[in-house]
Amino acid sequence: MAKLIEPRTLPGFRDFLPEDMAVRKKVITTLTGVFEKFGFQPLENPTLEYQDILLGKSGTEAEKLMYLFSDPGGRDVGMRYELTVSTARVLAQYPQLPKPFKRYQIQPVWRADKPQKGRYREITQCDIDIFGTTSLLADAEILAVVYEGLRALGFGQFTIRVNSREILFATMANAGISSASQQLSAIQSIDKLDKKAEDEVRNELSKKDFGAPIIDRIFENIKISKPNKNIAELLDLAEKLGVPNDFLKFDPTLSRGLDYYTGVVFETAVTQPKIGSVTGGGRYDKLIGKFTGQDMPATGTSFGIDRICDVITELNLWPDLPRTATKILVTIFSLELFDQSLKLTDQLRKKNINAEIYLDPAAKLDKQLKYADQKGIPFAAIVGPEEAAKNQVTIKNLATKQQKTVPAENLTDELR
Amino acid sequence: MAKLIEPRTLPGFRDFLPEDMAVRKKVITTLTGVFEKFGFQPLENPTLEYQDILLGKSGTEAEKLMYLFSDPGGRDVGMRYELTVSTARVLAQYPQLPKPFKRYQIQPVWRADKPQKGRYREITQCDIDIFGTTSLLADAEILAVVYEGLRALGFGQFTIRVNSREILFATMANAGISSASQQLSAIQSIDKLDKKAEDEVRNELSKKDFGAPIIDRIFENIKISKPNKNIAELLDLAEKLGVPNDFLKFDPTLSRGLDYYTGVVFETAVTQPKIGSVTGGGRYDKLIGKFTGQDMPATGTSFGIDRICDVITELNLWPDLPRTATKILVTIFSLELFDQSLKLTDQLRKKNINAEIYLDPAAKLDKQLKYADQKGIPFAAIVGPEEAAKNQVTIKNLATKQQKTVPAENLTDELR
Repeated sequence: MAKLIEPRTLPGFRDFLPEDMAVRKKVITTLTGVFEKFGFQPLENPTLEYQDILLGKSGTEAEKLMYLFSDPGGRDVGMRYELTVSTARVLAQYPQLPKPFKRYQIQPVWRADKPQKGRYREITQCDIDIFGTTSLLADAEILAVVYEGLRALGFGQFTIRVNSREILFATMANAGISSASQQLSAIQSIDKLDKKAEDEVRNELSKKDFGAPIIDRIFENIKISKPNKNIAELLDLAEKLGVPNDFLKFDPTLSRGLDYYTGVVFETAVTQPKIGSVTGGGRYDKLIGKFTGQDMPATGTSFGIDRICDVITELNLWPDLPRTATKILVTIFSLELFDQSLKLTDQLRKKNINAEIYLDPAAKLDKQLKYADQKGIPFAAIVGPEEAAKNQVTIKNLATKQQKTVPAENLTDELR
Repeated sequence: MAKLIEPRTLPGFRDFLPEDMAVRKKVITTLTGVFEKFGFQPLENPTLEYQDILLGKSGTEAEKLMYLFSDPGGRDVGMRYELTVSTARVLAQYPQLPKPFKRYQIQPVWRADKPQKGRYREITQCDIDIFGTTSLLADAEILAVVYEGLRALGFGQFTIRVNSREILFATMANAGISSASQQLSAIQSIDKLDKKAEDEVRNELSKKDFGAPIIDRIFENIKISKPNKNIAELLDLAEKLGVPNDFLKFDPTLSRGLDYYTGVVFETAVTQPKIGSVTGGGRYDKLIGKFTGQDMPATGTSFGIDRICDVITELNLWPDLPRTATKILVTIFSLELFDQSLKLTDQLRKKNINAEIYLDPAAKLDKQLKYADQKGIPFAAIVGPEEAAKNQVTIKNLATKQQKTVPAENLTDELR
C-alpha cells in the first residue's frame, strides 16, 4: 500500500479501548446478573434483516435514519434499528417458545441520527420484556428489575415514575378536549413538564390553540389526579417484589410516546448524582400483533447503557474499578532468572490469578514497572537472585510504591 | 399493517434463542476468563468503517464478499470483515496505547460467502493478539492460551501443530525450487496433507508441472525436517508456560496462508471428539505497518467460536449445562396465597437465587409446572395452605418428579 490511510472512525461510532471496556463489561455483567435473578433469558438476533421486516412497523419517520442497502446478493436489507422488531419476528417465527416469554437482549442498533455529545449512531440497546401476559405482575416485575438493576450499579437515589395511558386521556377528556388527536397533542406538551416550567408548557398549549379555560382545567386535573386501580395495584405488587415505596412515584404528567404504549408507562430518573433519565418503558399490547397477526400482550423497559457508562466514567462513580483485570505483572530480572519468572507466572495462573509476564526478557526492570503502571496493573512481582536463592518473591504495590518480600508459596494469599 | 410480513432470517444469519445462548454464553465466558488470566484485555470496534480502511489490506478477492454500501449521509462505508483491520486502525489512531498491546476481541464479522452447514454470513470472530514485540515468548503465550482455553472448554485431546515460514521455504529450496512464487505454489499443495493422502498431493504437484525428482525430494525433505532453533525455543517456552509436551507437535507441512504470516504458524485440531481445526494463527510482523506506516510486529490466533458452539450442541458435549440460568419457578397456589408466593420470590432473589414467579396468579398448578418444564427450570416451589400455615415450602425437582416439604428458611440451602 503506497498511500497511507488516515486512521479514523465514522461520526457517531466509537472504539471501546480496554479502559472503556472495563466500565462497559461491569455494567453489562451487573445488569445481566439482575435480569437472570428475575428469570429473564438472553436472546440475540442478526445484525441484518430483510427490509420489509424492518420497515413494517417503523414507517417513514424512522426510515430516514435507517442503514438500508442491497447486500452482495441483491437483497434489500437493513441494519437492526431497534430490538423489538427482531423479537416480534422471533415470536412469529418460533411459536413453540414457551409463554410468557421473558427475554433480555443487549445488542447494538444503528440510527443515522445527527451525532452530538452522548448521542451515537451505534447504540447499545439493552431491553427486558415480557411477552404473552396481560398480568400487572409482569409490569411490576419490570419495575422490580429497574430498581434492582440501578441499585446493583450503585445508584443511590432515583425515582421510578409511573403513569397510565388511561389516566392521561381521562385528564384531557375531563378538561374538555374531545378529539383523540387533540388529546394526544395536549399530552405531548404535558409530557415536557419534567424538563420545562409550567409557564412554558402553558405557552406551548396556547400556541396549539387550546383556550385558557381548557389549559387551566388540564393543570387543575393533573394536580388532583390520583392513581387508578391499575396503578395502585401495580405499585403494591412492585413493593411486594422488593421496591421500596419512596423509589416509586405516580406522575400524572408522564406520557412517553403514546402511539406505542397501551397501558402503564414508566421512566426512571437518577437524582443522586443528578443524571436524569436512564430507563423507560411501558406496556404495549398491540405492537407484536402487527407483525404476527395475532395479538400478543407485552411489557418492558430499556436501560440506557451508553448513557449509564458515560456518566459512570465522566463522574468517576466507580473510582475503585481496576482499569484492567490483570492482577500482577511478573517481571524478568535477568536472562539467567528468566525461567524463575516463567515458573512463577505459570504457578499464579494455575491458582487462577490473572498474571501477565513481561514479554521482553532483556528489558530493564524500570521499563517493565512503567509498563505495569501505564496499564493500571496493581502489582508487580520481582524474582531477583536473592529471592530466587530463598524461593521468595518481592511484591510491589504500584499505587503505594511499597514492596515486601514473601515466600513464593504465599504470593497468592498476599494478592487476595 | 394490512399485509402480514413473512417472519424469516436472511440466509447465513441466525437467531440465538435462549437455549443457544446458554452454550454461547458459557463458551465466551470460559474463553474470556482464560484470556484475562493471561493478561489480555478486551477491545471492541465499530460495526461500520470507512471503505478505504476496510479495503486497504484485503484487496479485490475479499471485496466481493464484503457488505459495502453508502450510509444515509452518502459516505462509502462497509461492515467489519475481520477484526485485524480495525485493530490495526486502533493502533495507528491511539499511539499512546502501552506496548506490547495484548488484546482479545469477540465480535461478529460479515462475509457474504455461500452459506452452507457450519458456514455463516454473520460470524462470531474471536481473536487474541499481541502487538509490538518480536519476542518468541509472545508466540509461546498464544500457544499457552490455546491450550488453556480448549482445556477449559472441556476438550480432552487435541494437537497444537507448529511450523515456521522459514522451514517451509527452506524445504522447497532444498528440493530444487528456486523461484519464490513456485515455492509458494508447492507449499499451498503441501498444506493440504492434513486432509488429503500423499498420492493426491503428489498428483496435484505433478499437475502444477513440478518434476517427479523434485516432488520426491520435497517429501524426503519433509520427512527428515526438524524444528529449527526458533521452533525448538518456542516449544520449550510453551511447555514452561504450562502446555504439556504431548499436546504440541512440530508439523513441517503446516503453512496457513503464507502471504499473511511471516514467522511461526500454528493450528489446533481437536482429536477427541474428532472435530478438526478449531484455532489457527501465527506471527505477522508486516501487516500492521501497511496501515500505520510503521512496522509493528504481531502474533496471535483465532478461536472458531461458531464451530465450537455448533459441535458442543450437536455432540451434546455439555449434557449437564442447564438450558436456563433460572433455578426455580415459584408457583402461585391460589389468589388467597398469592402474597405468600410473592414474598418467597423476593426472599429467594435477595439471597441471590435466580427465581421466576409464575405471572398469571389464576393459572392452574399443572399449567405452571408444565411451563417450568418447558423452559428447563430445574425446580418449582409450591406454597399451598398447609405449607403457608407451617411456614414451609414444597420443593419439586422437575427432572426426578420427587418433592419434599421443608421449612421456608431452608429452601436456599436445599437449592444449593
